[in-house]
Amino acid sequence: DFRGALEEVKPAFGVAEDMFKECVRNGIVEWSPAVQRILDDGKLLVEQVRNSPRTPLVSVLLEGPRGVGKTALAATIAIKSNYPFVKLIAPELYVGMSESAKCNAITKVFDDAYKSPVACILIDNIERLLEYVPIGPRFSNNVLQTLMVLINRVPSHERRLLILATTSQRMVMNDMGMLDVFNTVLSVPLMTTVDHVFKGLSNLDLFDDEMSNVVRRSLIESPMQVSIGVKSLFMLAEMARQDEDNKMENFLLMFREECMKGLGQI
Amino acid sequence: DFRGALEEVKPAFGVAEDMFKECVRNGIVEWSPAVQRILDDGKLLVEQVRNSPRTPLVSVLLEGPRGVGKTALAATIAIKSNYPFVKLIAPELYVGMSESAKCNAITKVFDDAYKSPVACILIDNIERLLEYVPIGPRFSNNVLQTLMVLINRVPSHERRLLILATTSQRMVMNDMGMLDVFNTVLSVPLMTTVDHVFKGLSNLDLFDDEMSNVVRRSLIESPMQVSIGVKSLFMLAEMARQDEDNKMENFLLMFREECMKGLGQI
Amino acid sequence: DFRGALEEVKPAFGVAEDMFKECVRNGIVEWSPAVQRILDDGKLLVEQVRNSPRTPLVSVLLEGPRGVGKTALAATIAIKSNYPFVKLIAPELYVGMSESAKCNAITKVFDDAYKSPVACILIDNIERLLEYVPIGPRFSNNVLQTLMVLINRVPSHERRLLILATTSQRMVMNDMGMLDVFNTVLSVPLMTTVDHVFKGLSNLDLFDDEMSNVVRRSLIESPMQVSIGVKSLFMLAEMARQDEDNKMENFLLMFREECMKGLGQI
Amino acid sequence: DFRGALEEVKPAFGVAEDMFKECVRNGIVEWSPAVQRILDDGKLLVEQVRNSPRTPLVSVLLEGPRGVGKTALAATIAIKSNYPFVKLIAPELYVGMSESAKCNAITKVFDDAYKSPVACILIDNIERLLEYVPIGPRFSNNVLQTLMVLINRVPSHERRLLILATTSQRMVMNDMGMLDVFNTVLSVPLMTTVDHVFKGLSNLDLFDDEMSNVVRRSLIESPMQVSIGVKSLFMLAEMARQDEDNKMENFLLMFREECMKGLGQI
Amino acid sequence: DFRGALEEVKPAFGVAEDMFKECVRNGIVEWSPAVQRILDDGKLLVEQVRNSPRTPLVSVLLEGPRGVGKTALAATIAIKSNYPFVKLIAPELYVGMSESAKCNAITKVFDDAYKSPVACILIDNIERLLEYVPIGPRFSNNVLQTLMVLINRVPSHERRLLILATTSQRMVMNDMGMLDVFNTVLSVPLMTTVDHVFKGLSNLDLFDDEMSNVVRRSLIESPMQVSIGVKSLFMLAEMARQDEDNKMENFLLMFREECMKGLGQI
Amino acid sequence: DFRGALEEVKPAFGVAEDMFKECVRNGIVEWSPAVQRILDDGKLLVEQVRNSPRTPLVSVLLEGPRGVGKTALAATIAIKSNYPFVKLIAPELYVGMSESAKCNAITKVFDDAYKSPVACILIDNIERLLEYVPIGPRFSNNVLQTLMVLINRVPSHERRLLILATTSQRMVMNDMGMLDVFNTVLSVPLMTTVDHVFKGLSNLDLFDDEMSNVVRRSLIESPMQVSIGVKSLFMLAEMARQDEDNKMENFLLMFREECMKGLGQI
Ligand SMILES: Nc1ncnc2c1ncn2[C@@H]1O[C@H](COP(=O)(O)OP(=O)(O)OP(=O)(O)O)[C@@H](O)[C@H]1O
Ligand SMILES: Nc1ncnc2c1ncn2[C@@H]1O[C@H](COP(=O)(O)OP(=O)(O)OP(=O)(O)O)[C@@H](O)[C@H]1O
Ligand SMILES: Nc1ncnc2c1ncn2[C@@H]1O[C@H](COP(=O)(O)OP(=O)(O)OP(=O)(O)O)[C@@H](O)[C@H]1O
Ligand SMILES: Nc1ncnc2c1ncn2[C@@H]1O[C@H](COP(=O)(O)OP(=O)(O)OP(=O)(O)O)[C@@H](O)[C@H]1O
Ligand SMILES: Nc1ncnc2c1ncn2[C@@H]1O[C@H](COP(=O)(O)OP(=O)(O)OP(=O)(O)O)[C@@H](O)[C@H]1O
Ligand SMILES: Nc1ncnc2c1ncn2[C@@H]1O[C@H](COP(=O)(O)OP(=O)(O)OP(=O)(O)O)[C@@H](O)[C@H]1O
Ligand SMILES: [Mg+2]
Ligand SMILES: [Mg+2]
Ligand SMILES: [Mg+2]
Ligand SMILES: [Mg+2]
Ligand SMILES: [Mg+2]
Ligand SMILES: [Mg+2]
Repeated sequence: DFRGALEEVKPAFGVAEDMFKECVRNGIVEWSPAVQRILDDGKLLVEQVRNSPRTPLVSVLLEGPRGVGKTALAATIAIKSNYPFVKLIAPELYVGMSESAKCNAITKVFDDAYKSPVACILIDNIERLLEYVPIGPRFSNNVLQTLMVLINRVPSHERRLLILATTSQRMVMNDMGMLDVFNTVLSVPLMTTVDHVFKGLSNLDLFDDEMSNVVRRSLIESPMQVSIGVKSLFMLAEMARQDEDNKMENFLLMFREECMKGLGQI
Repeated sequence: DFRGALEEVKPAFGVAEDMFKECVRNGIVEWSPAVQRILDDGKLLVEQVRNSPRTPLVSVLLEGPRGVGKTALAATIAIKSNYPFVKLIAPELYVGMSESAKCNAITKVFDDAYKSPVACILIDNIERLLEYVPIGPRFSNNVLQTLMVLINRVPSHERRLLILATTSQRMVMNDMGMLDVFNTVLSVPLMTTVDHVFKGLSNLDLFDDEMSNVVRRSLIESPMQVSIGVKSLFMLAEMARQDEDNKMENFLLMFREECMKGLGQI
Repeated sequence: DFRGALEEVKPAFGVAEDMFKECVRNGIVEWSPAVQRILDDGKLLVEQVRNSPRTPLVSVLLEGPRGVGKTALAATIAIKSNYPFVKLIAPELYVGMSESAKCNAITKVFDDAYKSPVACILIDNIERLLEYVPIGPRFSNNVLQTLMVLINRVPSHERRLLILATTSQRMVMNDMGMLDVFNTVLSVPLMTTVDHVFKGLSNLDLFDDEMSNVVRRSLIESPMQVSIGVKSLFMLAEMARQDEDNKMENFLLMFREECMKGLGQI
Repeated sequence: DFRGALEEVKPAFGVAEDMFKECVRNGIVEWSPAVQRILDDGKLLVEQVRNSPRTPLVSVLLEGPRGVGKTALAATIAIKSNYPFVKLIAPELYVGMSESAKCNAITKVFDDAYKSPVACILIDNIERLLEYVPIGPRFSNNVLQTLMVLINRVPSHERRLLILATTSQRMVMNDMGMLDVFNTVLSVPLMTTVDHVFKGLSNLDLFDDEMSNVVRRSLIESPMQVSIGVKSLFMLAEMARQDEDNKMENFLLMFREECMKGLGQI
Repeated sequence: DFRGALEEVKPAFGVAEDMFKECVRNGIVEWSPAVQRILDDGKLLVEQVRNSPRTPLVSVLLEGPRGVGKTALAATIAIKSNYPFVKLIAPELYVGMSESAKCNAITKVFDDAYKSPVACILIDNIERLLEYVPIGPRFSNNVLQTLMVLINRVPSHERRLLILATTSQRMVMNDMGMLDVFNTVLSVPLMTTVDHVFKGLSNLDLFDDEMSNVVRRSLIESPMQVSIGVKSLFMLAEMARQDEDNKMENFLLMFREECMKGLGQI
Repeated sequence: DFRGALEEVKPAFGVAEDMFKECVRNGIVEWSPAVQRILDDGKLLVEQVRNSPRTPLVSVLLEGPRGVGKTALAATIAIKSNYPFVKLIAPELYVGMSESAKCNAITKVFDDAYKSPVACILIDNIERLLEYVPIGPRFSNNVLQTLMVLINRVPSHERRLLILATTSQRMVMNDMGMLDVFNTVLSVPLMTTVDHVFKGLSNLDLFDDEMSNVVRRSLIESPMQVSIGVKSLFMLAEMARQDEDNKMENFLLMFREECMKGLGQI
């Protein structure tokens, strides 16, 4: 399991363990077989990079709506790779940098990676790295072009590199020609059944059994389409928990709102 | 009550009490139960941030038309939190700064907040911070991106942070993808009944009882939809007060105009 | 009367009397009761700022077509306020400044005003200050945002501030969200009757009585809509005066053209 | 007459006689009474500025298609004014300057003018000064705004200023709000009759009498609308002159083409 | 003939003979009477500038599709002028320069020209000088405005200047207002008949007589519209020549493709 | 054959052999006669540049969808040219450079090439060099213009230059006017038959004979249009290889997806 994986990792150099751990703060709950499938696909790519002489560079994009766990899953694959070099490129690291400083910092991570016989880079939240905003639209073409070239640049001298990236803007990536740059794409799904939701809640200690039954029945009976990400579910649960007296009502209210938002009905 | 709350607050460091007091210059009049509801919701979020280990970061947006009291309510929640660190980010503080200086100043507030075990930041009037103007539209993507990343950045080392923000441009925030960044949204309403209006006026000493009755009747009889914010109501009352002889007429005239403006009929 | 008012003013400091006098070079002719009404409304606002503890900041926009006398009326209100600090912000003062220098200069005026217990600032010709041009449209968002924040910023420490502003682009101000920033709006009208015109001409010594009758009859008989600003009327009168022999013909010709231009018929 | 006028001018200081002379290289031929009318109107404005106490600033725009003689006429009015200060602002003088350098240079001319009791500034070819290009459209808003403010700025200390300007882009000036800035507009016409053309050619010694008759008849008989500027006519005449053998044919050919171009038929 | 002309030229100073020679690397083949007509028109303009006192400045634009020989023809006119100063302004000379450096370099050429009693400047490939690209469209307005002013600026002190320019973007030049700036326009045509093509090929030694007949017949019989520039024809001929065995087939294939491309059918 | 060619090359100076070798990491598999045809066409152009006195400069564009082998084919032509100077211009070489630094670096390569009697420059992936992105669209007009001028600039002093370039954005190149700049265009095709695919896979040792038959049959029977580039095929093969147990299924799945993507059906 994942928590175990974290403990085993003892890379010679370069892994920023802490930052990756924070990406998986609330663990990986297997609320659907799709979760394990993504981790398995990741493992195959990890092996391909390590072994295939014809493809020293492989790039994969994890895409899906906000809050479905893209970052946590990508971080898990990266940590489990056990590569000696694993590094994060994320918007939080570059707050306040100019476009060109950001490009330099990103390029530096790649240059460092090329020094390791086999390396993994996780590029988190591409649209935010690009400073993308739908109005306009605007984004940093500098950062975009730098990423497009770097993601495509085959390391020389027999070095090997796995690139993991996450985005919640698949269409935008496609329009930018960024999707083509990746060798493969993994889609991280939303929870869509009541069962998903309760598997997701199982470790949170939010409702006792009786409450669980009431809530479950209410969800099943309501004519609403379930559509929520695991991260949002955790947030709702914690919010509901604050008002002990109205926990179920509040949870159901916020849950319905979140699903409608997810379905574009609000 | 609020005035009392202000007195009690004696945080160890970091609270800019004066600036928050000025945000609530004319107190909080409970012209509708919705007012208390918003304060209560705020209190729950204050508790969640203090207590829940799974959600060390919670962000909430107070949105509503101009002059409904968003800033005063957010400031009240912040002060009542009794957190040791409470800070304001507002456009008035950054007049004449370049985009990047502004980004740095904002980032600095967050960096300071991360040093407190639990902190609250109030980001007032986001659209003005972004230098948003509907023609174009134009805005500082620098500031937008900085805010989006900061509002999403989970503090490390067990620190906890509550982010309150206000806007009168919900649609714009949505179009920018800024709405998604917040964990929850509270809507501050306009006054929509004659009763709201008179509860709002009650402490102002504008009309004597007889006048009140005349005005009230006139409002009830007119076929006009009431639609006004508490801040605008206070301004009208003070304007009307200047011309003692025509107080009622002037008030009614300006009140009708304001409501029509609010309803987009002017 | 106004000329008298000018003489009385003896403020302790800060009033740039000369510049305000130049704004009213040709006096205030009362060609319609609307003229006095605007001056009266201005007077009430002057009193409100001086007296009301709840509204230490009041802002008013004088809007109307080009040449109707907006600047002269606003300047008159400002001078008659007898406030110890009265200052002008006008595009002529900032020719050739960079956007940011202009913003600094404007901010400086406000900062100075906050030092006076009660102050008045006249922001003349906002669209020109913003370097607005309808093609694009283009304008300085820097200056716009600076103005929006400053016009909204409540002075601290019990200081009081009246902001007067003028524009001939009401719609543009509305589209920019600038109209909402003002607490109230006063509309300065065009002359629309032959009577207005002759009241306007009365002090100019342009026509003798006989000529006046001829011109008046000609205007009344023509099927043309009167639509002209007091400033434009004065310019026409002076142009016509140059060619003594064709004074009436030239005046009528130019007058008609001006009215048609005002009505968008040319 | 004009040539005479040039000789008489002996201003105390500031008149750049040479540059103005070059604007009227080929004299002013009176091919239509409209030519004198424009010069007369100019003269009245010259007198108004000199005399009227109410209008110390008058601005006039000479507009018309390319090559109709706008610059030559404006220069003639300026020279004939006999003002002690007459200065040219023209795009040729600012080649290779940055926008802000250009703005400074233009402002300098005005500041110099304010030092003369009465002055005249000729702003030639506004659209080129603005670096206007219809694609986009693009132009220097810096220069535009500087001009708009300067053309509107009333000189203080009893100084008097006449501003003459030329443009072949009336519609563009209107769209920019530049037309409104001028107190009056004079339209310089194209030649539209065969008679205009022959009056225009009279001093050029291009055709002998017989040839003239042939060409005139050919023009009258052709079903073509005459539409040509005096400057273009002079150029055609000189081109035709080079090929003595085919003078008439070439002239007629080029003349027709020019007219069609003028009418938008090519 | 042209080659002879090149030898004769021995100007006192300023002619960059080499660069002009390279523009006419493959001579001027008279594949149509139109070729000589353009050279003749050029000669008349050369004489007009030398002689006419009324037109010290004449500007002419050679326009036509890509590869029709515009540059070679303009260079031939310039060399044959025998003026003491003949200079080239071409995009190749300014590679890597900033916009303003380019403007300065161009202005320098004109300033040098004004020092010669009579001078000729060839501005080659205006659209490339402007860095024009149809997407957007984008171009250097700096360079455009500099050219527009310089092409229109009459040299003072009795100096004389002929300006030749080339473009393959007539419509774009028109949209930019650049076409109006020239006194006259010469259109360089494409080859449109089989005869043109064979006259064009005559000196190239590509096909023997028998082959020529086969190719000619094939061209005449095919239902295709001939439409090719002399420069492209030369390139095709050289390409075809490389594969001796398939010369005719390859030539015909490429020729057809080129014609279709020219006609917008590919 | 190609591998042999690589060994033979022993140029006196300037060939960056390593970088070119990396472009052909997986050799050139002749999966269709079209492959050899492109190499042959390249050879003829190599000879033309070496020999024809009339065309010292020839430029050719290899265009086709992503991953069809454009770069590998262009590199092969360049290496086989045996020219003493062969150089690569590719986006990977300029990561993080400013636009103008990039332009300078590119210009430097051309200037170096002009020093060799005969030289070859390979400009790889033009759209990425231009930092092209379809949203907007945006691109570096600086780099575009520099390339357009350099690709067109005939070397002086009898030097000879072959320019090879690659793009997967033919339409964009056309819209930019970049296509016209090349003397000829070679189109590199996708694999479109099952036969192409199996010729492409032949050296990879992916499937044994039995598996091959199963896969082939499955492909033939499926109603899907084959449409894949050789580079993508290699990547799929290596991915499938990782999961020995599901090799065929995975290959078929990914192959279908890739074809659909290529056909715009995903
Ligand atoms: N099966 C799971 N997959 C992913 N995350 C999980 C899972 N189970 C629990 N989690 C927890 O849910 C959270 C997922 O948040 P994460 O930041 O990865 O989402 P995201 O899709 O990247 O969100 P965003 O769109 O905001 O970037 C993490 O705290 C993680 O520990
Ligand atoms: N119930 C109430 N809620 C909010 N404000 C109130 C209330 N009662 C009285 N007030 C007073 O009304 C004013 C509200 O103004 P505030 O600046 O908060 O409005 P706002 O919605 O933020 O306006 P803007 O849209 O301009 O930012 C304050 O002076 C506050 O003291
Ligand atoms: N009743 C009046 N109201 C205003 N101005 C008057 C009046 N009577 C006479 N005037 C004179 O008319 C002129 C008005 O010009 P003013 O510059 O104020 O107009 P404006 O509307 O500001 O013009 P613009 O639109 O160009 O800014 C002044 O010279 C003023 O002295
Ligand atoms: N009646 C006339 N009016 C104006 N110019 C005349 C007249 N008669 C002769 N000319 C000559 O014709 C020429 C007019 O050219 P001018 O540059 O003034 O035209 P323009 O309209 O300013 O052209 P452009 O549109 O290019 O600026 C001058 O050389 C002038 O001497
Ligand atoms: N009659 C002719 N006219 C022009 N050029 C000719 C003629 N006959 C032969 N040539 C040769 O053809 C070539 C014409 O190329 P040139 O560069 O002048 O064309 P262009 O129209 O300027 O092309 P581009 O549109 O690319 O600028 C030159 O090498 C020239 O020597
Ligand atoms: N017939 C072939 N043609 C081209 N490349 C081949 C061929 N056979 C095998 N290859 C191999 O296929 C790969 C082709 O990749 P290449 O980078 O040239 O494609 P590309 O079209 O340039 O891709 P991109 O569109 O991403 O630039 C190389 O590794 C090359 O060695
Ligand atoms: Mg994420
Ligand atoms: Mg507020
Ligand atoms: Mg005004
Ligand atoms: Mg002119
Ligand atoms: Mg050319
Ligand atoms: Mg490639």
